[in-house]
Amino acid sequence: MTPEEFRKAGHELIDWIADYRTRIPALPVRARVRPGEVRAGLPASAPVSTDTFGDLMTDLEQIIVPGITQVQHPMHYGWFPSNASLASVLGDIASSGLGTLGISWESCPSLTELEEVVCDWLRQLTGLSDQWRGTIHDTASTACVTAMILARERASALSKNGAGLQGMTAPLIVYSTAQAHSSVAKAVQLAGFGNDNLRYVAEDPYTRAMLPEALAEAVAQDLAAGNIPAGIVCSVGATGTTAMDPVAAIAAIANRHSVWLHVDAAMAGSAMLLPECRHLWQGVEQADSLAWNPHKWMGTILDTALFYVRDVPHLERVMSTNPSYLRSAADGEVTQYRDWGIPLGRRFRALKLWFHLRLDGIDAIQARLRRDLDNAQWLKQQVEAADDWEVLAPVELQTVCIRHVPRDVQGNPISGEALDRHTLAWVERINASGSAFLSPSVLDGRWMARVSIGVEGTGREHVARLWQLLQEAV
Amino acid sequence: MTPEEFRKAGHELIDWIADYRTRIPALPVRARVRPGEVRAGLPASAPVSTDTFGDLMTDLEQIIVPGITQVQHPMHYGWFPSNASLASVLGDIASSGLGTLGISWESCPSLTELEEVVCDWLRQLTGLSDQWRGTIHDTASTACVTAMILARERASALSKNGAGLQGMTAPLIVYSTAQAHSSVAKAVQLAGFGNDNLRYVAEDPYTRAMLPEALAEAVAQDLAAGNIPAGIVCSVGATGTTAMDPVAAIAAIANRHSVWLHVDAAMAGSAMLLPECRHLWQGVEQADSLAWNPHKWMGTILDTALFYVRDVPHLERVMSTNPSYLRSAADGEVTQYRDWGIPLGRRFRALKLWFHLRLDGIDAIQARLRRDLDNAQWLKQQVEAADDWEVLAPVELQTVCIRHVPRDVQGNPISGEALDRHTLAWVERINASGSAFLSPSVLDGRWMARVSIGVEGTGREHVARLWQLLQEAV
Repeated sequence: MTPEEFRKAGHELIDWIADYRTRIPALPVRARVRPGEVRAGLPASAPVSTDTFGDLMTDLEQIIVPGITQVQHPMHYGWFPSNASLASVLGDIASSGLGTLGISWESCPSLTELEEVVCDWLRQLTGLSDQWRGTIHDTASTACVTAMILARERASALSKNGAGLQGMTAPLIVYSTAQAHSSVAKAVQLAGFGNDNLRYVAEDPYTRAMLPEALAEAVAQDLAAGNIPAGIVCSVGATGTTAMDPVAAIAAIANRHSVWLHVDAAMAGSAMLLPECRHLWQGVEQADSLAWNPHKWMGTILDTALFYVRDVPHLERVMSTNPSYLRSAADGEVTQYRDWGIPLGRRFRALKLWFHLRLDGIDAIQARLRRDLDNAQWLKQQVEAADDWEVLAPVELQTVCIRHVPRDVQGNPISGEALDRHTLAWVERINASGSAFLSPSVLDGRWMARVSIGVEGTGREHVARLWQLLQEAV
Repeated sequence: MTPEEFRKAGHELIDWIADYRTRIPALPVRARVRPGEVRAGLPASAPVSTDTFGDLMTDLEQIIVPGITQVQHPMHYGWFPSNASLASVLGDIASSGLGTLGISWESCPSLTELEEVVCDWLRQLTGLSDQWRGTIHDTASTACVTAMILARERASALSKNGAGLQGMTAPLIVYSTAQAHSSVAKAVQLAGFGNDNLRYVAEDPYTRAMLPEALAEAVAQDLAAGNIPAGIVCSVGATGTTAMDPVAAIAAIANRHSVWLHVDAAMAGSAMLLPECRHLWQGVEQADSLAWNPHKWMGTILDTALFYVRDVPHLERVMSTNPSYLRSAADGEVTQYRDWGIPLGRRFRALKLWFHLRLDGIDAIQARLRRDLDNAQWLKQQVEAADDWEVLAPVELQTVCIRHVPRDVQGNPISGEALDRHTLAWVERINASGSAFLSPSVLDGRWMARVSIGVEGTGREHVARLWQLLQEAV
């Protein structure tokens, strides 16, 4: 395809995207396709001749769009806000158009240095000290695997350079809570620790925050048994109920025993753009690594996960490679991000953050986050004031965990499996309607509904409409 | 930013990209910035007020573009071809514009099912049997880490579910050659094996291909010592000289001992789109996993790395998580790609391949690859026929490894460090000129120049021009 053919098709595509984003509120929130339906609409083999751009746009509209759950829809309250602000989309388009290659500083100095700059901008905007240096990963899951490998290599004195983890004579142990995101257990497994060496520390029964005294006891027991405490994952805003592990108290224990402390603030990190929320991760300066996703609530399009560390030399010792074909005269003077993570090659992801922050501005982003915090508190109040409705966990940020608990014929609140059936049924009625979308989740062994507020287009009127739908659905 | 503001800026950006891609041939190939120069041009903190789109485009032009090494330039012969075909750029733009979220089938059925379809199209186009199922990773490095974890978990009978790799009593061993990409040693380290347990098997001194009899002997020695052979990485087109390990002979050894065989065809996989090249990975059907990057020579914009496996149940057992907040009614009927790799969230990457294959067409892609093979043979002949020039390795595909070996005052060919200084000096003269770019590499302890042909815009006239520049530079 020539640049002129690209120009023509590109203009059509920009118009299509602008129109699409305009009409999202009129689309059903949840995709209405059956398993295999999209696949069935596509040829089983690649075309032998070329198609026109018009053919492709027709298929995009008729086959692809119906199979999209609209996470940009103002009535999307599922999983987490996965905002793709149009300012950041422009940055992403610039990245695609430039066609750069990030494998070393020399292959694209701008890619490396803009990434350093925007990671530092975000460091300042979230109130972190200049002890931290950041990079962009695809997801917080990958950041967590990286953190667990850093923990393993610190506790094993760089066993990777010798006999590996399999050469250790005493088991290395990782601590978290059962509220931690599923990626934490996965990271512990992928890094080779094994499930037996992951300790779920006791939580506060209401806030679901890790109990530091329970952590201290678990660490003491492992030390007494001859095990080696290696890593702790502290959730700042755990997935289920946005539980906030107490970072300062946990960090004190971690530092006492030189255990790597990783703070997983994948969703809640966006809140740290608001000074009034930073008490929620007080003590973070004593952690070793930290991840949060601007591609969630803040709204820089996926994939944009920030990973910060304090001990860069350790990071580079663990992740570095220096083959001859990647050496350059600038080595030693520049950052080589290939030595900061798993992949060698990288896209020019920093452009998304650069465009987003410069075009939308931090003031507007902060105002939107505060709007969402207010809306969550408003919904919490409505639910608490209504008969037969319950709010199940503290509303620390923008997620409201709720249940509707009707009475049986004897006038007693239903419970157990009957309650589960009721919850899943009314959530499914809402999701199937296409008017709104919620993702149910299990808390204390029973299903609940998570209302995750924070889509860019979600105003008070949408949350009020949701509350109306909730009451009609039960 | 509203859709209408996006529309206006988007049109400007499309025109800018089309113009940019048109003027790349007039830009210096290697970026001419000093370390820190791009960073120095950018504010140390995020702006407090918003900037206009015009401001941003001015900075993109004045600060970012000078810091880009132009891998789309027809005179770029460095590292590997990192083509970003404009058809695939359109697909990438569609992905950005849609703003989808890939965390489960339900979050975007189209994303999952189109990925299944295009991975299967590419499977057929590279002549693989239907025993293989594929997914898209960011890079072959990540695919290699995944493969090494799959190897570890097969050899350790899913130790991740118990005491982990650290619970093994006999060391698990991985085999490769010293020609393998640096990501192989890194993957072995990250997966916890440790460097001591990575065996570099002897190679043929000219082809640099692994010697199967040396592999058989290494495996036998480990078995005799009570070690557990766990993984083999077979390079189909190793980075330095495009060395081709003999897959069939290696697979026979791997299968005899149930060792996981990963085929790393990151660069050379594109060649398998040509039936006449497939003898180069004969035996691939007996491997366990396989990775190659359409984002290299084929030209689907980075990041597009294909990862195929045959034993999907093993893959899912190793990589799966199933937290309650990600469960849906479709589970069991659909593919959940979160259980196929490290990250949970994924972009809609399949669109890039879909647009590329449909708009450019496989015929045109194949014709371009054949052009590049011809150009490499042509250059090889010129170098071989010239006085004082040497071709150092077989030209299996599109990479030509060369040295210029002048005579000293006694009329003897220079060697040792004098030869290294000469090689690095003339390569640097070419790179500094901006007229072309080569990446030097070490072979048998001495520097050489790698001429990696295959940029979309590189015709015979460009390769002829390079040969002229080479002769002038020495």
